[in-house]
Amino acid sequence: MNWKIHYTTNKPKLKNPILIEGLPGIGNVGKIALDFILEELKAKKIAEYRGYNIPHSVFINENNLIDLPGIELYFKKTKNRDLLLLAGDVQPNDEAGCYEFCDTVLDTMQEFKCKEIITLGGIALRQEPKMPQVFITGVSKETVQEYAKGTKANTKIYGKVGPIIGVTGVLLGLSKRRKIPAVSLLAETYGHPFYLGVSGAREILKILKKKLQLDINIKILDNEIKEIEQELGKTHELTRMHYKKKGDEVDYIG
Amino acid sequence: MNWKIHYTTNKPKLKNPILIEGLPGIGNVGKIALDFILEELKAKKIAEYRGYNIPHSVFINENNLIDLPGIELYFKKTKNRDLLLLAGDVQPNDEAGCYEFCDTVLDTMQEFKCKEIITLGGIALRQEPKMPQVFITGVSKETVQEYAKGTKANTKIYGKVGPIIGVTGVLLGLSKRRKIPAVSLLAETYGHPFYLGVSGAREILKILKKKLQLDINIKILDNEIKEIEQELGKTHELTRMHYKKKGDEVDYIG
Amino acid sequence: MNWKIHYTTNKPKLKNPILIEGLPGIGNVGKIALDFILEELKAKKIAEYRGYNIPHSVFINENNLIDLPGIELYFKKTKNRDLLLLAGDVQPNDEAGCYEFCDTVLDTMQEFKCKEIITLGGIALRQEPKMPQVFITGVSKETVQEYAKGTKANTKIYGKVGPIIGVTGVLLGLSKRRKIPAVSLLAETYGHPFYLGVSGAREILKILKKKLQLDINIKILDNEIKEIEQELGKTHELTRMHYKKKGDEVDYIG
Amino acid sequence: MNWKIHYTTNKPKLKNPILIEGLPGIGNVGKIALDFILEELKAKKIAEYRGYNIPHSVFINENNLIDLPGIELYFKKTKNRDLLLLAGDVQPNDEAGCYEFCDTVLDTMQEFKCKEIITLGGIALRQEPKMPQVFITGVSKETVQEYAKGTKANTKIYGKVGPIIGVTGVLLGLSKRRKIPAVSLLAETYGHPFYLGVSGAREILKILKKKLQLDINIKILDNEIKEIEQELGKTHELTRMHYKKKGDEVDYIG
Repeated sequence: MNWKIHYTTNKPKLKNPILIEGLPGIGNVGKIALDFILEELKAKKIAEYRGYNIPHSVFINENNLIDLPGIELYFKKTKNRDLLLLAGDVQPNDEAGCYEFCDTVLDTMQEFKCKEIITLGGIALRQEPKMPQVFITGVSKETVQEYAKGTKANTKIYGKVGPIIGVTGVLLGLSKRRKIPAVSLLAETYGHPFYLGVSGAREILKILKKKLQLDINIKILDNEIKEIEQELGKTHELTRMHYKKKGDEVDYIG
Repeated sequence: MNWKIHYTTNKPKLKNPILIEGLPGIGNVGKIALDFILEELKAKKIAEYRGYNIPHSVFINENNLIDLPGIELYFKKTKNRDLLLLAGDVQPNDEAGCYEFCDTVLDTMQEFKCKEIITLGGIALRQEPKMPQVFITGVSKETVQEYAKGTKANTKIYGKVGPIIGVTGVLLGLSKRRKIPAVSLLAETYGHPFYLGVSGAREILKILKKKLQLDINIKILDNEIKEIEQELGKTHELTRMHYKKKGDEVDYIG
Repeated sequence: MNWKIHYTTNKPKLKNPILIEGLPGIGNVGKIALDFILEELKAKKIAEYRGYNIPHSVFINENNLIDLPGIELYFKKTKNRDLLLLAGDVQPNDEAGCYEFCDTVLDTMQEFKCKEIITLGGIALRQEPKMPQVFITGVSKETVQEYAKGTKANTKIYGKVGPIIGVTGVLLGLSKRRKIPAVSLLAETYGHPFYLGVSGAREILKILKKKLQLDINIKILDNEIKEIEQELGKTHELTRMHYKKKGDEVDYIG
Repeated sequence: MNWKIHYTTNKPKLKNPILIEGLPGIGNVGKIALDFILEELKAKKIAEYRGYNIPHSVFINENNLIDLPGIELYFKKTKNRDLLLLAGDVQPNDEAGCYEFCDTVLDTMQEFKCKEIITLGGIALRQEPKMPQVFITGVSKETVQEYAKGTKANTKIYGKVGPIIGVTGVLLGLSKRRKIPAVSLLAETYGHPFYLGVSGAREILKILKKKLQLDINIKILDNEIKEIEQELGKTHELTRMHYKKKGDEVDYIG
């Protein structure tokens, strides 16, 4: 097990906490939605997940200094229940690493007596959807119904989409194994590597706002697209590197 | 060693048990045959093999809920001797993982004092065979003869087929090392990734029915093709993903 | 953790030591600069870093004998402070191996109470730069300013270059995590696999000489190009092998 | 460390033993030479090296039964000194696995107080050599001279051949680290994957016969080519599989 949690503050006491995950992925839908929540709620970083199965490189940030690609845990106390938020620049870069990472996250969740997990992701279409639909699936009918109720989320997902890949899927699968209620909200988006799935993220945010009574102003999401693009720059650079590796061009440093 | 067995019921007491393995592979011949036995005998699941070297994704099942790809152990008491059945959606996804997994399975078999192992698989031809032949090989002449006797299975396999790859082969090889009698039944099939090797599976089932006096009605195999296809959907989706990864199309979610 | 340090002499007592890293990379800028310092200062080898994530081959040296590809630690006492120098023929060959290696190096640095780390590298351009610029970045504004002050090094690096890949980047990133001041000097060079980034290395050497008051005669760098090429032969052969692996030609031994 | 030695007989007491390695490689020169020595001297198998980093498949042998690909240690007492012989169907299939395996072999050698190691290999040319030359290199001038003396082996290898890849090279490199005298005999051969480097192997055998006073009749090597081809069939099948994996054809079983 090379993945470990490293707390950067005291461990907070949490009331009936729920975890929401939004790491980079298709259209970066999950990451856009989660980073917006972090920003709007001014969530506080409490820990980093550290492991060796990630890109072996550092970013240059806007202060001209370097940053390791990171996966971080934030929290925010809300009226009803406390939120844990799993955000990051990267996903583990191999299959075994993904399982290991997700089991490490679930160990944390069980320590915090976390009662529910929501993972966020995108469904890649071959063209840009005008009105992106949100699909919902999960580990049990009850949890899925609970999150679908009163929203436009579509629960008829079987036969429509393929496997859910990466942390968004495996975190769900390992939650089922540990009998932790968990669902995934998946928004349609355009399947191009550098497309920003902002409209898909917006649909997910609407559902989360309603179901969790989040104090977020979704209207300003569009205003923040510039900032989002900058933040996603890190992730895109890595993706671009990855594409280049397979091509002939050399344009990197090291 | 990351592969471990996880019992989901009490460990049963077994009488002179024999293991039959049928995981996804060429034409899915082994999987089709084994899943049919599971269904017909109403075998009971007793354990899961859990490891990190498998696809990092979850399936959507027909209830619109998610399932982790799994490898599972079933058992069924029969008149003569008890059966252990190794079934699953996937095989370990790398070479070291395959060896590790097979050694973990053999540890279980030795605990159950399992006396014999039969692995099932396909031999890929470049076109669809009209009358698929079954070949038999194994770790000792005696065991091979015992299973070939009174059947049409062909024991003259040398020079006709190449190495037996994956769990079907390695389980046999590691059985030899532990001096556990083991054979493999390999049916000819068409080597296309999405071809369903039902006719090859039928020939294997005929031999297993005869030699182990299984109470199965092979005639209904054809009626069940629809169900088989649905069940194999999971495996095919993963295979399809794998093919896609190498192409340009994006059509997945996560 | 398979990476370990192996001392080949007694551990020296060091005064306020600083580590400079220069392993193979883009244009081999870092390696050329560091190997020149080693040579000029007659630094003494004290240890080897040994791990399994490197090319599985040996070189033929100029004495017709074999050498394992190595990564080595040297030291040199200077007027002000002592230098530790990390040199080698290769970098770890996968992402997890790179992280592991860098953490092992930082463990050594903390044992030596090393106060600062400088990593050296190249920035690949699509054509040969006439006047290669040196960029500087690091883990904190203070350290970057300290090294930029009084030199022509450019600290405005954001938006100009992508991620810093390999040991040059990850050593910086993990230093930040351990709160060790660290900077990287990155010189522009031509991005062709066999280009020798001598002119970029010269610009880096000018800065290091000034800031660390190194007793090196940079003028003779050009005279030593022949020797450099010979030394780089080892690294180039490995690179060439790597390129061949993907092609059809066979020209290797083993 | 997943590689381990497994003794299949009592550990023999050996007098001043020397190890000769000949595993599959370029032209299978080393394997052909070593397997001929095994056969001629009727060497006795004493152990297997078992690890997980090898092809995950089993062969069909000429008795229509299966065999795991193996790496085995044999011994033979001779007039002067005892021989340990390292033979096999495969080499470890990744870089870290190769290092691990070689360190495991050297642990055995130190247990046996083995005083010298000879590795055998091929140098791939772009066309078939009429008179294959043997090159010799090693960890020290003395050992190289000792083996070159009185033979036609060429010690001027620098600049003529690239890195020595795989066990043939790494065993040499790690012997140097442990201060065990070691040399490599490398014969020119044709670099085609299925070429049998019999003439290169013959030149190596001449040197070994002379230097170690082996009681072998090299003249019959040609008569045994048929048997060699059969034995190499196993290795070739694996190689062929490997080539196929990258193509479209499916022709395997499992």
